[in-house]
Amino acid sequence: MDEGTGKMAQSLEDKLKNYDSPVDMLRNAEGGPYQFPIKSEFSNWRDEQEAFRKTAVLFDQSYHMTDHYMEGPDVKRLLTDLGANSFKTFGKDKAKQIVVCNEDGYMIGNSILFGLEDEKINIVNRPNAGNWVQFHAETKGYDVVVHKDERSLDSDQPRKGYRFEVQGPNAWAILEQLNGGPITGFKFFGMGEINIAGRKVRALRHGMAGAPGLELFGPYGDYDLIRNAIIEAGKDHGMLLAGSKTYSTVAHESGWVPSELPAIYSGESMKEYREWLPANGFEANSSLGGSMVSDNVEDYYLTPFDLGYSHIVKFDHDFIGRKALEEMKDSRDHKRKMTLIWEPEDVVRVFSSLFNEGDRYKFMDMPASHYATYPYDAVMHGGRQVGISCYPVYSSNFRRWISLCLLDPEVAEAGKELYVLWGEPDGGSAKPVVERHVQTEIRATVTDCPISTEARVTYKKWAA
Amino acid sequence: MDEGTGKMAQSLEDKLKNYDSPVDMLRNAEGGPYQFPIKSEFSNWRDEQEAFRKTAVLFDQSYHMTDHYMEGPDVKRLLTDLGANSFKTFGKDKAKQIVVCNEDGYMIGNSILFGLEDEKINIVNRPNAGNWVQFHAETKGYDVVVHKDERSLDSDQPRKGYRFEVQGPNAWAILEQLNGGPITGFKFFGMGEINIAGRKVRALRHGMAGAPGLELFGPYGDYDLIRNAIIEAGKDHGMLLAGSKTYSTVAHESGWVPSELPAIYSGESMKEYREWLPANGFEANSSLGGSMVSDNVEDYYLTPFDLGYSHIVKFDHDFIGRKALEEMKDSRDHKRKMTLIWEPEDVVRVFSSLFNEGDRYKFMDMPASHYATYPYDAVMHGGRQVGISCYPVYSSNFRRWISLCLLDPEVAEAGKELYVLWGEPDGGSAKPVVERHVQTEIRATVTDCPISTEARVTYKKWAA
Repeated sequence: MDEGTGKMAQSLEDKLKNYDSPVDMLRNAEGGPYQFPIKSEFSNWRDEQEAFRKTAVLFDQSYHMTDHYMEGPDVKRLLTDLGANSFKTFGKDKAKQIVVCNEDGYMIGNSILFGLEDEKINIVNRPNAGNWVQFHAETKGYDVVVHKDERSLDSDQPRKGYRFEVQGPNAWAILEQLNGGPITGFKFFGMGEINIAGRKVRALRHGMAGAPGLELFGPYGDYDLIRNAIIEAGKDHGMLLAGSKTYSTVAHESGWVPSELPAIYSGESMKEYREWLPANGFEANSSLGGSMVSDNVEDYYLTPFDLGYSHIVKFDHDFIGRKALEEMKDSRDHKRKMTLIWEPEDVVRVFSSLFNEGDRYKFMDMPASHYATYPYDAVMHGGRQVGISCYPVYSSNFRRWISLCLLDPEVAEAGKELYVLWGEPDGGSAKPVVERHVQTEIRATVTDCPISTEARVTYKKWAA
Repeated sequence: MDEGTGKMAQSLEDKLKNYDSPVDMLRNAEGGPYQFPIKSEFSNWRDEQEAFRKTAVLFDQSYHMTDHYMEGPDVKRLLTDLGANSFKTFGKDKAKQIVVCNEDGYMIGNSILFGLEDEKINIVNRPNAGNWVQFHAETKGYDVVVHKDERSLDSDQPRKGYRFEVQGPNAWAILEQLNGGPITGFKFFGMGEINIAGRKVRALRHGMAGAPGLELFGPYGDYDLIRNAIIEAGKDHGMLLAGSKTYSTVAHESGWVPSELPAIYSGESMKEYREWLPANGFEANSSLGGSMVSDNVEDYYLTPFDLGYSHIVKFDHDFIGRKALEEMKDSRDHKRKMTLIWEPEDVVRVFSSLFNEGDRYKFMDMPASHYATYPYDAVMHGGRQVGISCYPVYSSNFRRWISLCLLDPEVAEAGKELYVLWGEPDGGSAKPVVERHVQTEIRATVTDCPISTEARVTYKKWAA
């Protein structure tokens, strides 16, 4: 509520009027980090993380993502008008990582796009990309009907579907055991069906752990049936159930940045969208955190090229942002997605400050220490910001804290030593998740993205 | 299920037959630490812990405890036959910390006992004590009807009642603001009523934070009404909502041991009770963890004198265990309840082992690092066990890890330096919460219990 006028803000655009700037709203938002409303641990996160690399894990993705189901004769035209991807061969049983941008070529979001039928799709992730597509479907004259199935935290309704993921080196053996025979015909990111407990279950192939695995989905009424069958089959293969602590750390090992700030908070061309987005929705209540602070929200925007999506952007069609992306595509200034390996000695120093009488550093929760929906920490070199660190996690596989980062090209080189500015300035923002603290520097070594399994032994040993 | 016979165990007694010993069952149980099924943090646990000492907190106790409601003409006789407390003046609007023991004087449990009406009581805590009273009510010829309202984790039903606690130096001001005037007539551990949002709300006075506060309870249908009113009143007094992370740490600051192993797993005299307790119940599925390992489950049993309840035990009536307790009461061998302040340098060493290629120490989760329902770590001196450390927590108020402990009298002296053996032997038990690890020694200094606010500055400074 606007304390001056007593009027309840109706839209994101309304809400922004109560703040000095979009950054002011986002940095001091009530919301904490993105939530995964499942059990935090089933056994313990150390073993669960290691199972992801050594045996197999079952991820339960049934609750934390929003599903945008869309159906109608104009579905393909809608996608083509918005997505930077090519949709030439898209249709039933095809899947994509859909990338949507604003007119200026900055990311609004990315999601998994499922071709359920030739004229029916599902867009699944944090709601950012799906909301943008829904906005166009509902306001720009497309013959498309949208059913938005909100993530559990934003809804009292049961989910429409379950969504499980079996990943790890033993995943395929578990899935073939469930299927009762070899699973064939799945290309990478291809869809198909397997048998589980007497059901034909639709699936998407990917391989988060560097080994093939499947994402499985179907009606929520089958949740227990399918889950129990997977658990039973997994027993012979050392599969562990992974809780939210483990789930929130493994994207890093596969190199996916889940948390780009959507480029929607500024500009006249996005005003209509901000008026459409509700004041009580995700975009109006998510938070921005970390040591990177700029008054200009556009400094936080990222392009598909910054995020490593060059191979996704296809200029074989017209889409929002095409002109800007075409102009910038050959630039050498795009950021490079790399991994930072944090220096144990400095992380230990942060931990040790918990015993200080006075100032402490920002607490690093284990195994994931992001504390905002959009974590942006400044990566520094020679006193100058040279990149963005996208939330740090401890990996029991690498025995290190690591973070994904987007670096200026001149420092984006394996072996380079940089540092992360850890904590927020001025004692910390007003986000309730942030206790008063002081900033400190944490040394970090650049390595490849995704991080290689050799990274742990390649870099200098740590002697406790 | 017994894998040999294929027969499903029906009772705790049945289940025990599948194991080498009660210790074998308990140390390798599936269950992890005792759960508090509320939000883990509302703002962040550092600020929430500090609010407990500096302003006020709202604890939500509506879900994690089992309520045993008992009603009938024999209620007082039932309590008198079992409780070590005096019940001479007990009745409506009286409350007690009820202590129940076995024939040999060892603790079965302790709970808060509420006198709701002259012939109606409620016993509230982990279910141990309540189950023991229920067993007698239902099998030993008492004219008492029991309604057991299980903790949320063991039940699909909504709770019968809400239960909130407002504690901290500003608690009384918040409660008087809610009441619309001074609150009078509450003795310590006395019950009464205050006004909240148009309701007469029953309350118990205690003071977990060293300042008076109230525990409030009423019908679950009023949960939102009462909670919202408290939150609103708390805004003027710096009150924070406390999540499960904070809740699981503050008992330590007030000196209450929540986790004595119930003395029910051995002995012919307890066999009938073990046969009555179900194989799928709390007692048959809770876990024992930590570095203290004995083949004899009775080594884990504790007396009321060990736990600092000498003032509670009253020999003005006959009760189960009286004879044994009378015989031991003048012994000088009872353990003494004290607080251990853990040496920061050693805790940092445990943390640092997370970066080792090989062996790590047992992970210490923050702010509470207990990993079993009954955490028993050995406190050592000169190579010999001299006490039990009852789960360690980090306190943002003291900027230290602390644990309650039960020490042999000869070492129970403020300033004494002892050490805690941290971690389980042989790489760790089979509890799923336990990752493979090695043991280590953590130095600790003995101080009073409850820990005094001066403890932090009295002991040697830590330089990070």
